[in-house]
Amino acid sequence: MPDAVTMDKLVSLARRRGFVFPSSEIYGGLGSSYDYGHYGVLMKENVKARWLEAMVRERDDIVALDSSVLLHPRVWEASGHVSGFTDPLVDCRHCKRRFRADHLAELECGVRPSKHPGETELCDLTEPRQFNLMFQTRIGAVEESGMDAYLRPETAQGIFVNFKNVAQIARRKPPFGIAQIGKAFRNEVTPGNFIFRTLEFEQMEMEYFVPPDEAERWYRYWIEERLSWYLRFGIRRENLRVRPHEPDELSHYSSGTSDIEYLFPIGWSELEGIANRGDYDLRAHTEASGTTLEWVDSATGERYVPHVIEPAAGVNRSLLAFLVDAYAEEVVAERPRTVLRLHPEIAPVKVAVLPLIPRNEDMVGRARTLYEELRRVVVAEYDDSGQIGRRYRRQDEIGTPFALTIDEQTLEDETVTIRDRDSLAQERIRISGARAFVLDKLAESWTPPKGD
Amino acid sequence: MPDAVTMDKLVSLARRRGFVFPSSEIYGGLGSSYDYGHYGVLMKENVKARWLEAMVRERDDIVALDSSVLLHPRVWEASGHVSGFTDPLVDCRHCKRRFRADHLAELECGVRPSKHPGETELCDLTEPRQFNLMFQTRIGAVEESGMDAYLRPETAQGIFVNFKNVAQIARRKPPFGIAQIGKAFRNEVTPGNFIFRTLEFEQMEMEYFVPPDEAERWYRYWIEERLSWYLRFGIRRENLRVRPHEPDELSHYSSGTSDIEYLFPIGWSELEGIANRGDYDLRAHTEASGTTLEWVDSATGERYVPHVIEPAAGVNRSLLAFLVDAYAEEVVAERPRTVLRLHPEIAPVKVAVLPLIPRNEDMVGRARTLYEELRRVVVAEYDDSGQIGRRYRRQDEIGTPFALTIDEQTLEDETVTIRDRDSLAQERIRISGARAFVLDKLAESWTPPKGD
Repeated sequence: MPDAVTMDKLVSLARRRGFVFPSSEIYGGLGSSYDYGHYGVLMKENVKARWLEAMVRERDDIVALDSSVLLHPRVWEASGHVSGFTDPLVDCRHCKRRFRADHLAELECGVRPSKHPGETELCDLTEPRQFNLMFQTRIGAVEESGMDAYLRPETAQGIFVNFKNVAQIARRKPPFGIAQIGKAFRNEVTPGNFIFRTLEFEQMEMEYFVPPDEAERWYRYWIEERLSWYLRFGIRRENLRVRPHEPDELSHYSSGTSDIEYLFPIGWSELEGIANRGDYDLRAHTEASGTTLEWVDSATGERYVPHVIEPAAGVNRSLLAFLVDAYAEEVVAERPRTVLRLHPEIAPVKVAVLPLIPRNEDMVGRARTLYEELRRVVVAEYDDSGQIGRRYRRQDEIGTPFALTIDEQTLEDETVTIRDRDSLAQERIRISGARAFVLDKLAESWTPPKGD
Repeated sequence: MPDAVTMDKLVSLARRRGFVFPSSEIYGGLGSSYDYGHYGVLMKENVKARWLEAMVRERDDIVALDSSVLLHPRVWEASGHVSGFTDPLVDCRHCKRRFRADHLAELECGVRPSKHPGETELCDLTEPRQFNLMFQTRIGAVEESGMDAYLRPETAQGIFVNFKNVAQIARRKPPFGIAQIGKAFRNEVTPGNFIFRTLEFEQMEMEYFVPPDEAERWYRYWIEERLSWYLRFGIRRENLRVRPHEPDELSHYSSGTSDIEYLFPIGWSELEGIANRGDYDLRAHTEASGTTLEWVDSATGERYVPHVIEPAAGVNRSLLAFLVDAYAEEVVAERPRTVLRLHPEIAPVKVAVLPLIPRNEDMVGRARTLYEELRRVVVAEYDDSGQIGRRYRRQDEIGTPFALTIDEQTLEDETVTIRDRDSLAQERIRISGARAFVLDKLAESWTPPKGD
């Protein structure tokens, strides 16, 4: 993590430039909920597209799925979520706030704050009680005829209950996978770390079904594969680590789980989990539903319950990691600048087109023509408001890799300047070749500049 | 609507080929909920991408937003949903089923079915009662400290409550718009018309903020614009119509609403609604939140509450219309075939690569190489299982515009056949030019073939 970045600075940039806002702000906000503005949406789209490319489009062995948020309630009984997806919570009798009993170090009484940070004795705590983290609702118009239902706390179960359909139709034999991107909801007490943990969030989960004796091999394969995905899109190696769960951390069904951790401003924290879930899920749903979920080879008659390797990532948390890793403050020509050094494939806008003098109609005309040409092939932005320095700083803060400026010389010799976000180098190129030049630049391999 | 297509046929094709499955099927299903398989996901992605392109990327006046599903509950009080978003429902005292009081024609008692279809007197109905269509849940771990909340029944309100943030940051002046794609949830009694109306669905909504005296003009503009979007992606003109709401259908806040209707198998039904909402929403949230939502021109000091034009489309319903319009059955060389004549930009797979003889390693090698080359630029599929005729029929049923077949002649002269889904014409092209040929073909303008 670059030294300069704190969560407060990120929150401020995200808000100032319209990446992320607190949700329902005009009504006083809703804790741990955020809305994504224009650049946030574009960047999220990029994160999801890169994941789908790597997980589905570049492979033959994984298909996509999009299951419902509201599943049959028996899904969550079978999965163990109704009985076991709980947090132990304690209440402070003074300030009435609720805390996670397993996170007592973060706790402080709101009414009688301790003068000694880290001490908790001023909170008068109740005994821990277990609270289920699923949001509950009811399907059907009235109480008596309705059916209790839950907002899914993970997308994975929607994959398991579709295993048979998908395996049949996709004509795949293990190892094969089913990938899904979608919202999940958890009714959590959160410590307010921006978009690190929110009530609703988008998951990118893939369940990879393998012959039982290959599970360990694929588990290791997917740890490496997912780690390399973050590296491929510019996260620095030194800010990533793989942490295998200790035996006492493991879910009862898991024979191995590793977290890919990132050095967030709040410290090393989970970015993605890769779990070897064994045959727990398919067996649980087989038992509860009466439908046998197994693999049968129609040629050989071989049959078995596949084991499952699950790489589970989060869109919002990945976005946060990309932002943290890209954030830099520096002084250029005695002026401070903030810049997001995002990988070009993650950056929300790829190129900006700026007429140097907005009142000059010739410049504006040239700039508009170039902009119209560019935005047919990449996400481009046209900006003619304010001093050119302000416009550059604005593009730096949203992480736009290249800016093309139309100036007086353009009108004379048909060239424009292209400014590189990272090196700040400017070179003149012919306007007729600008589109090809930008596409080539964007296709070049990109690694984060050293020395931040 | 082509004569051949019925909802049953579509449901069957969608299931057989893995576009759409009933949700939670192994647990007996959950009424009016569907999961999307591989081709359904790819096709939905295309529908959303085309909408975003047309609404955001090709324009300068509209920005994107992604707001939360769970908003502050006061949002839904201010919007009128808590008090007014209801359906009148009646119960049958015999069969205990519940019906919409405004849809009595569709009603039949499950215990004592009428021998005369259309007669309803065998149902012994209760008086109509109003039921709110919002799914309710509770944020916070326990009852006493929690907060009632609702799953959003539309994405629009998330846009209105962010109006001030977005207008400020996006530095736009009216007319400008905010576009959002996202899930919405309605606890409805549905008549079971496949994905036409479901408990959860994806909306594509755009709120266009305009000076009050321009509202009527922009209302008409957006009706035309949205109609042309469906035409652009291949829906036949004769299956679309614009129906202005009658005065007694209009919401109390609307000074004009028009539905773009499509001729679904269930008859002419709403595909998209375009509403002139006036200043109702911004005023309602100004009053309820105490935050003034208006436009202030910092240069002139001019200030006003913009009026809002809202084109509101559905991802799932659009997908259904695209499927219905594309579905055709025909007899070719004395064999029946089912084909989805989807616009190439909507079709889930653009090109299939097929080795004629799967046991021939040379053919397979050539086919794999070509496939790897193609899938870097478009969604491609490789298929080497079964007779070539079966493979063609499979690609026809998922709507793949082109299939490239590697055969014996390929090994001799480096050519492959390209088969056109619509005309069934096959021509031989050089394998080295196949990628460029396919890209050119996909970029050609496409209109649905006549005479279906």
